[in-house]
Amino acid sequence: MAVRLRVLVWNEFVHEREDEAVRRIYPQGIHGAIAAFLGRDPALSVETATLDEPRQGLSPERLAATDVLVWWGHMAHDRVADEAAARVQARVLEGMGFIALHSAAMCKPFMRLMGTNCSLTWREADERERLWVVERGHPIAAGLGAHFELPMEEMYGERFDIPRPDATVFISWFEGGNVFRSGCAWDRGNGRVFYFRPGHESYPTYHDPNVQRVIANAVAWAAPRVNMADSCPNETVALERIEPKPGRA
Amino acid sequence: MAVRLRVLVWNEFVHEREDEAVRRIYPQGIHGAIAAFLGRDPALSVETATLDEPRQGLSPERLAATDVLVWWGHMAHDRVADEAAARVQARVLEGMGFIALHSAAMCKPFMRLMGTNCSLTWREADERERLWVVERGHPIAAGLGAHFELPMEEMYGERFDIPRPDATVFISWFEGGNVFRSGCAWDRGNGRVFYFRPGHESYPTYHDPNVQRVIANAVAWAAPRVNMADSCPNETVALERIEPKPGRA
Amino acid sequence: MAVRLRVLVWNEFVHEREDEAVRRIYPQGIHGAIAAFLGRDPALSVETATLDEPRQGLSPERLAATDVLVWWGHMAHDRVADEAAARVQARVLEGMGFIALHSAAMCKPFMRLMGTNCSLTWREADERERLWVVERGHPIAAGLGAHFELPMEEMYGERFDIPRPDATVFISWFEGGNVFRSGCAWDRGNGRVFYFRPGHESYPTYHDPNVQRVIANAVAWAAPRVNMADSCPNETVALERIEPKPGRA
Amino acid sequence: MAVRLRVLVWNEFVHEREDEAVRRIYPQGIHGAIAAFLGRDPALSVETATLDEPRQGLSPERLAATDVLVWWGHMAHDRVADEAAARVQARVLEGMGFIALHSAAMCKPFMRLMGTNCSLTWREADERERLWVVERGHPIAAGLGAHFELPMEEMYGERFDIPRPDATVFISWFEGGNVFRSGCAWDRGNGRVFYFRPGHESYPTYHDPNVQRVIANAVAWAAPRVNMADSCPNETVALERIEPKPGRA
Repeated sequence: MAVRLRVLVWNEFVHEREDEAVRRIYPQGIHGAIAAFLGRDPALSVETATLDEPRQGLSPERLAATDVLVWWGHMAHDRVADEAAARVQARVLEGMGFIALHSAAMCKPFMRLMGTNCSLTWREADERERLWVVERGHPIAAGLGAHFELPMEEMYGERFDIPRPDATVFISWFEGGNVFRSGCAWDRGNGRVFYFRPGHESYPTYHDPNVQRVIANAVAWAAPRVNMADSCPNETVALERIEPKPGRA
Repeated sequence: MAVRLRVLVWNEFVHEREDEAVRRIYPQGIHGAIAAFLGRDPALSVETATLDEPRQGLSPERLAATDVLVWWGHMAHDRVADEAAARVQARVLEGMGFIALHSAAMCKPFMRLMGTNCSLTWREADERERLWVVERGHPIAAGLGAHFELPMEEMYGERFDIPRPDATVFISWFEGGNVFRSGCAWDRGNGRVFYFRPGHESYPTYHDPNVQRVIANAVAWAAPRVNMADSCPNETVALERIEPKPGRA
Repeated sequence: MAVRLRVLVWNEFVHEREDEAVRRIYPQGIHGAIAAFLGRDPALSVETATLDEPRQGLSPERLAATDVLVWWGHMAHDRVADEAAARVQARVLEGMGFIALHSAAMCKPFMRLMGTNCSLTWREADERERLWVVERGHPIAAGLGAHFELPMEEMYGERFDIPRPDATVFISWFEGGNVFRSGCAWDRGNGRVFYFRPGHESYPTYHDPNVQRVIANAVAWAAPRVNMADSCPNETVALERIEPKPGRA
Repeated sequence: MAVRLRVLVWNEFVHEREDEAVRRIYPQGIHGAIAAFLGRDPALSVETATLDEPRQGLSPERLAATDVLVWWGHMAHDRVADEAAARVQARVLEGMGFIALHSAAMCKPFMRLMGTNCSLTWREADERERLWVVERGHPIAAGLGAHFELPMEEMYGERFDIPRPDATVFISWFEGGNVFRSGCAWDRGNGRVFYFRPGHESYPTYHDPNVQRVIANAVAWAAPRVNMADSCPNETVALERIEPKPGRA
């Protein structure tokens, strides 16, 4: 049997415990909902982790055993330890995939990987979002039509302060008059990073079939191609002869 | 009279004080040498700063009064305070230009802006370097021919672990058999970042006219276009009417 | 006195002669309107050319004397001679700037420079367009706010079949539910290319101050940095010694 | 049984018939050598085509039945019909993969897809080439080490006049002192394009295991993700209500 891709769905898991309305939408937590639909794919081995677990669910051992990390966070960004965020960043640079969802635009690991503020304009107003597929041939858009809609979502609007994406897969139209680069892909080190905009906790976004398809596609796309620890080698022996220079010992 | 661009040349200034051979090449320090040739341009107002100054020469006031920051560092990367590195990063995202020279590939501000390890292969062997101009039309290559040479330099080789550059201006050929993306440009936030490879402390690289031209071109290119503090605004009032959704209060 | 940038505004000039409603908006033609506002800048020397002129206004001499070519075309794309389109392309690759406006997304020179279909979705329905500035620091966005609006425009929507832009400066929101990458920049050869979406002939778009500012900014940005004819040189003499290989004459 | 990827290896097939030395290296033609090693992969269905076949081996039916087209050409670029080159371009934009080898940098289909001169510096001098892997995680570099060598090759050097690659996978070091972006990837329309430098007809380059691995990797990478004919639809019915504008009929 083929080796399965090891996916870890991480969630701060705060809204769902503090807010009854959110809990009704995601009784198993947002991580539980995401793990459930990903887990239907026999090619994936899916686990979850949350902020309140030992080492915040992000121990070196756990990260070493993760191929793709899916991240949801919002109100508890600051409670993620800098050391944990640094470990996630280092694992991405080694080759692990990283999928940042919605408000994870401002989580520590994503911000460290981007190097920018990742700031944006936002509004909670039950507005319609329509995601247009800009790269029809991108693997993350596989199986989608020209666009898909979410009847109600939080608005995120440009200027989104990110480095120029290697690929912009989706651009969102919002009822209230804004646009947003909603699906952005980057290579960082040996790893792949994808940001996907939808997913405010007060809407059933992760129950939407198109959203589920995008996240599943992104997990497959972000599978490690190589897995190499970083080094900065002193290659003292040259591959070619270096002629002695006059006046040098 | 036109407003002059305010350039700050920062140097850790350690090698030149500890190593007589380096001091002979750069009696005023590497920062002094760079400030001297940049200072010949009446459009620039050039100052220098070093690690041993109060607040490591990187106080908020000083950075606020800087348009383009040129950085040289090597053995003292770790002594730069995280807070100072974070201030530099924040100023770049507001709009300040940042020029990282040679071993500054692994200085804290550059690594924070890149989000990667910035690791590379290296060798000190008095070898010849030839920089090929890959983007003839890029402003940083203005006035150069198809290539230029440095008779002796430290080697830096690929794999250079950086995000995909927005533009790769130079690629180096090394006598010992390696290649390197020696001139790389990125936008980050509102600011511009340029990495330029040459400049090992034991060679008179910053006295070379082509190197001086590149650094002067890079300073001009990195001049701020805008200067805006970051924010993440809640735009509660929409630009367009949002229709009330059934079942929402 | 400083040398002025030589701008040529080319227009097929068909709608304005065939359609009274268009002529009322642009009595001097679209080219005349654009040349008028560009001509207020003393740094520019602005001329116009149209399809019905000798050699379609695109003679080798005229192109050789042009620094930046601004192009409007729509219903007469096919009447532009292939040779003329090839000359424009060759001049861009030498260093000339090229600004393609609105329906010039499918003009021959732009399609040759892009290598793609440049196809898109469209609708004429008097709808509101709002252009969001995605790259606040880009020179083409200088002087603009976070967004600007056009009360009525033709809609162009994604998927816009273009190569990945080197910079996406604007993204448009349309009242009817679409989005579009409305300001896209590329380097091609030694030249710079900018595509700017607005400008349907039946609306007074080129009288809008923000649109005028964008076009003026784009002309300045696209100014040639170098001007070099193409060659593919056989460099028979190597810069380094090549060791003789066994068994080769 | 899984559907196999349909690969067509096209070769102008002139050198091998006119030059005994080339024929000794490639007795079945360069296309034959490439088809032989690709054909060992049961996931591929490999055929060949040459310039002297009816419709130059590039009939609409044949292209429609091709998933990935591998192209070698050199002295007969001009003999390829413009219509054939246009058909290849159109198929790439629909989704077909295209691999341009060595002197195919200046073949008509590649130049049409790039929009640039694709010019470069060159020298035939039996010199050593070393290809450095710049993107360790790119699928086209799978299974390679940090670099690999070819003992003798023709030199191609920068400036290579191509649009900025979406990914630069390899950079070559040449014994005679030049460098070159030897493995460059672009998306164009729905298709993927890869340029791979090595392969001068007078060296046994296509018998090299690393070169074979790169070409096999590139074929897999360029497999179509979608296959869609181009259109430019008039979407007369908007997805959202467009408010009537005052003064418009």
